[in-house]
Amino acid sequence: MGRTVPGVDRKDALIDISAMSKTAVLLIDCPDRKGLVAAIANFLVQQYDANILNADQHQDVELGLFFMRIEFATDEACCDEARFHAAFAPLAEQLKMNWRLTFANPPQNVAIFVSHYLHCLADLLHRHQTGELPCNLSFIVSNHEAARPLADFYKIPFHYLPVNASNKNQVETSQLALLAENSIDVVVLARYMQVLSPKFVRTYPQRIINVHHSFLPAFTGARPYHAAFARGVKLIGATSHYVTEALDEGPIIEQDVTRISQNDQLPDLIQKGRDLERLVLSRAVRWHLGYRILSYANKTVIFA
Amino acid sequence: MGRTVPGVDRKDALIDISAMSKTAVLLIDCPDRKGLVAAIANFLVQQYDANILNADQHQDVELGLFFMRIEFATDEACCDEARFHAAFAPLAEQLKMNWRLTFANPPQNVAIFVSHYLHCLADLLHRHQTGELPCNLSFIVSNHEAARPLADFYKIPFHYLPVNASNKNQVETSQLALLAENSIDVVVLARYMQVLSPKFVRTYPQRIINVHHSFLPAFTGARPYHAAFARGVKLIGATSHYVTEALDEGPIIEQDVTRISQNDQLPDLIQKGRDLERLVLSRAVRWHLGYRILSYANKTVIFA
Amino acid sequence: MGRTVPGVDRKDALIDISAMSKTAVLLIDCPDRKGLVAAIANFLVQQYDANILNADQHQDVELGLFFMRIEFATDEACCDEARFHAAFAPLAEQLKMNWRLTFANPPQNVAIFVSHYLHCLADLLHRHQTGELPCNLSFIVSNHEAARPLADFYKIPFHYLPVNASNKNQVETSQLALLAENSIDVVVLARYMQVLSPKFVRTYPQRIINVHHSFLPAFTGARPYHAAFARGVKLIGATSHYVTEALDEGPIIEQDVTRISQNDQLPDLIQKGRDLERLVLSRAVRWHLGYRILSYANKTVIFA
Amino acid sequence: MGRTVPGVDRKDALIDISAMSKTAVLLIDCPDRKGLVAAIANFLVQQYDANILNADQHQDVELGLFFMRIEFATDEACCDEARFHAAFAPLAEQLKMNWRLTFANPPQNVAIFVSHYLHCLADLLHRHQTGELPCNLSFIVSNHEAARPLADFYKIPFHYLPVNASNKNQVETSQLALLAENSIDVVVLARYMQVLSPKFVRTYPQRIINVHHSFLPAFTGARPYHAAFARGVKLIGATSHYVTEALDEGPIIEQDVTRISQNDQLPDLIQKGRDLERLVLSRAVRWHLGYRILSYANKTVIFA
Repeated sequence: MGRTVPGVDRKDALIDISAMSKTAVLLIDCPDRKGLVAAIANFLVQQYDANILNADQHQDVELGLFFMRIEFATDEACCDEARFHAAFAPLAEQLKMNWRLTFANPPQNVAIFVSHYLHCLADLLHRHQTGELPCNLSFIVSNHEAARPLADFYKIPFHYLPVNASNKNQVETSQLALLAENSIDVVVLARYMQVLSPKFVRTYPQRIINVHHSFLPAFTGARPYHAAFARGVKLIGATSHYVTEALDEGPIIEQDVTRISQNDQLPDLIQKGRDLERLVLSRAVRWHLGYRILSYANKTVIFA
Repeated sequence: MGRTVPGVDRKDALIDISAMSKTAVLLIDCPDRKGLVAAIANFLVQQYDANILNADQHQDVELGLFFMRIEFATDEACCDEARFHAAFAPLAEQLKMNWRLTFANPPQNVAIFVSHYLHCLADLLHRHQTGELPCNLSFIVSNHEAARPLADFYKIPFHYLPVNASNKNQVETSQLALLAENSIDVVVLARYMQVLSPKFVRTYPQRIINVHHSFLPAFTGARPYHAAFARGVKLIGATSHYVTEALDEGPIIEQDVTRISQNDQLPDLIQKGRDLERLVLSRAVRWHLGYRILSYANKTVIFA
Repeated sequence: MGRTVPGVDRKDALIDISAMSKTAVLLIDCPDRKGLVAAIANFLVQQYDANILNADQHQDVELGLFFMRIEFATDEACCDEARFHAAFAPLAEQLKMNWRLTFANPPQNVAIFVSHYLHCLADLLHRHQTGELPCNLSFIVSNHEAARPLADFYKIPFHYLPVNASNKNQVETSQLALLAENSIDVVVLARYMQVLSPKFVRTYPQRIINVHHSFLPAFTGARPYHAAFARGVKLIGATSHYVTEALDEGPIIEQDVTRISQNDQLPDLIQKGRDLERLVLSRAVRWHLGYRILSYANKTVIFA
Repeated sequence: MGRTVPGVDRKDALIDISAMSKTAVLLIDCPDRKGLVAAIANFLVQQYDANILNADQHQDVELGLFFMRIEFATDEACCDEARFHAAFAPLAEQLKMNWRLTFANPPQNVAIFVSHYLHCLADLLHRHQTGELPCNLSFIVSNHEAARPLADFYKIPFHYLPVNASNKNQVETSQLALLAENSIDVVVLARYMQVLSPKFVRTYPQRIINVHHSFLPAFTGARPYHAAFARGVKLIGATSHYVTEALDEGPIIEQDVTRISQNDQLPDLIQKGRDLERLVLSRAVRWHLGYRILSYANKTVIFA
């Protein structure tokens, strides 16, 4: 999560945040109006006895919307979603808030979907192992066997669910059952090359993260790297986003680009694209796990 | 300032920020403790009847420090520094705050110091003319005549104060007099190649902005571009910072780098360095003018 | 041109390139085949007594094409295009070359077209004045009066040719006459907001340079910055290219991007876009003036 | 190697480069003088019957030096280093060349040294497995057991050679013996935290690749990330270089930087630094394996 640094001597600080288990994040969006920051801060401090560890806000001036992420610490006894809900609901209703409260513990349950390109999966598994991605990696689903050795090495359950023209619906039913059984919070598409059905997408709104290549200018169609290569682009990019029913048009979470050389051949472009995809996907997953993303009106606010 | 967008239809917003003359920025740093955000927001909203337009905060976890920038709108009558001071002082004292209140109007008075390299000056003048740098450009000082035509073109008063071995103190006295007479708020060193005396620097703490080249690794000594070229560096950079008595070691405001090619000769490096210097200096000036920089412990917090 | 550095002590070098007036650049593209480098180098060295100062080559592996840029120095007497042509033609024909020979002197004649956004113009004028753009800046054409003061300041002839619904053809006739009378080599569209006719474009193939914004993903239509802002993109870009009859789809010369913050409002996006446009256009112009660009199959090879 | 693309249909090309086993790379540096390109190309084409696939050259104008990388294809019979040497030696002597001829096959033998940070190792192993790093990964050496599971997973021999105050010389002797027995061509220090002795370094000149973090400005001493964090730098970087006896001061191969946020704590800086180190080290290794690096005068020429 990065905001609270285990091992750093904080004896000069007045706030004791040593008890990580009591840390919560409150995400809010509502119409912008006078007194919002004060009203929310007051509730947390005076009525709820919270220590505000971090408060970020953002306005969408055009739409007149207000967004806030507050990370706070409370006593164990207060760490109860039902209790918080009862206390906060009147204020939330009055200010027309959409809001979500989450606790740092237990960690979120994550499922990774992958096909035969393994660069994003290998990157996520290594980052998870080194502690960069604080979550419970529940299982990996793939329509290929290629990922099994990596899954075995990192000791993550692996489900091989091959897809063909006739069994697509059936496979999705199995996938959804797996997600439900494991109480999965977020699905990461780490170069999973199958299109998810609208029903699947609707079941996990703002909870499916995908990554794809991006170009300046954009190239549509089946072979964008070939088109970009033919046009002689000087930069290639990658975009991570939440999956919506409109393919690859969901809210953008993160983007990055890299310069390509005219000596780069098609395989070089694809390799550079892979390096970007890994970075851009892992940033999106890290921010999602830290409850740092608010999504609205097909865009995102990132509190990073 | 960019936060409030003239011409954007905000009829959906509940806050009326049409009266720009009433906008103020409050910058605070103090020891981190429970209830800070609520206390400050409450004062502004309940006691001072302000609309909070934007509130950013930052913590230095290691040092236990809290930083806040609040942009708010008030009635004309409240826009009085003395009145605000009287009302806010008790809270500020209680919470051990360093604080500074500024109003968007009148704009700050800026003086630019320049020598014979004019790229940063030309850039600042053009940005000022197009409205990117909302300030009153009071005058330009130079130890060379080279900048005079640009100053004349943009109709900014120009003071030619040549420096030699024997008149350095005398010139500084003249410069300081000019700054005082014009109530200058901030001095921009746009490639001014003379070292300012400790006395000069102490007169304008956190109010003199400089830019210099940066390298990976760093090269010290008289001719850093030559050293970087000799070592075959692949990147060059530029850094803008507040001037302190330790030359080029003041708090960093902004940095950027660019890739260089092995075909680049020394003049190419210097030209690429110039492009960076313009960007990095203009960003620093823009943030300073928007009261977006808090400086402490030889580093900066940027609220951008 | 950057390859030969005035002021650098080259007493250790065996080649005397002090006489810049004798420097020439030969650009070649032809079908890739065995012995090309040797054949061309032999001609220049043995038959033409040239000193090769710099030789870059590039292959398009897919299309089987070979590209070469050779910068060489010759005796005054050899610096004659007709003489070179007579000597080189047999080899060129045998190897099916497209080729072009140019001399560093006289410099190319450049015309700049501009409308009411002046940031690219101001940048080009300043770079020209400081020697970064070695060319003869013949005149500026604009459909607005806004650029006249800058033109006057830099002492470049200014032609005000306003465009309306009924005089478009007539204005183009005047523009083409101006270009012809001044033997213009290259036209730089520095945010010129009028579409050039196919006839105009065909008159100056690979000799009209334009710049436009670019986005990931691309947004088409009238107000791309608004669309990009609405989508919440994290990066914006700019692209410089040669103008072809297909609007904004000519061979890409250079691209760059910059990261945007979610606090950036529409004017901030536009300002950051302007900074990119200046950089990306000036690089394209510099490379073109150095005969560093070969264009083929709607892409470019850059020898930089 | 990227220049020749297996699977790409080159039926339009006149050169048949289908037989990859016959591809060679010639690297040359010598005093710059007239006729070099022609002389070398002539030798290869006329005397040696080679197809030049790619020829890059570079001049160091200040030092009067010429560098060339030529990739060419020959008949099987010509692919003999002794034969080439006999033929080329007279020309090389006449032109005072340093030169090196290498063949694409057999691939180079690589050893990786690593300590307890595994991010670079994991990245190199994954890239090797996916074919991005065409080499024979002979073995991994470590002074810790941490890397063994990764080595086992990728089926690379692993040698655990713990180092303490008293056995340093002895361990180096074992390491050098392993390198010699396996005819290692290049040693990659993938975050190996032991300093190699001058004797070790001299045994593999320009053949040991290291990576380390870089900062603007540079911070020396034991804990550079802490120093950079304390100074509030806005960018961090990484540098890969050849190891020389002067620690971390060998010829720079590649550098890159990334922007850091003021919300980044020390662990975030270190994580971002790791991401850079992986990229910057893998690029250096890829270029070295493709014989794309020429090192001289403590800098490098990269033919990429």
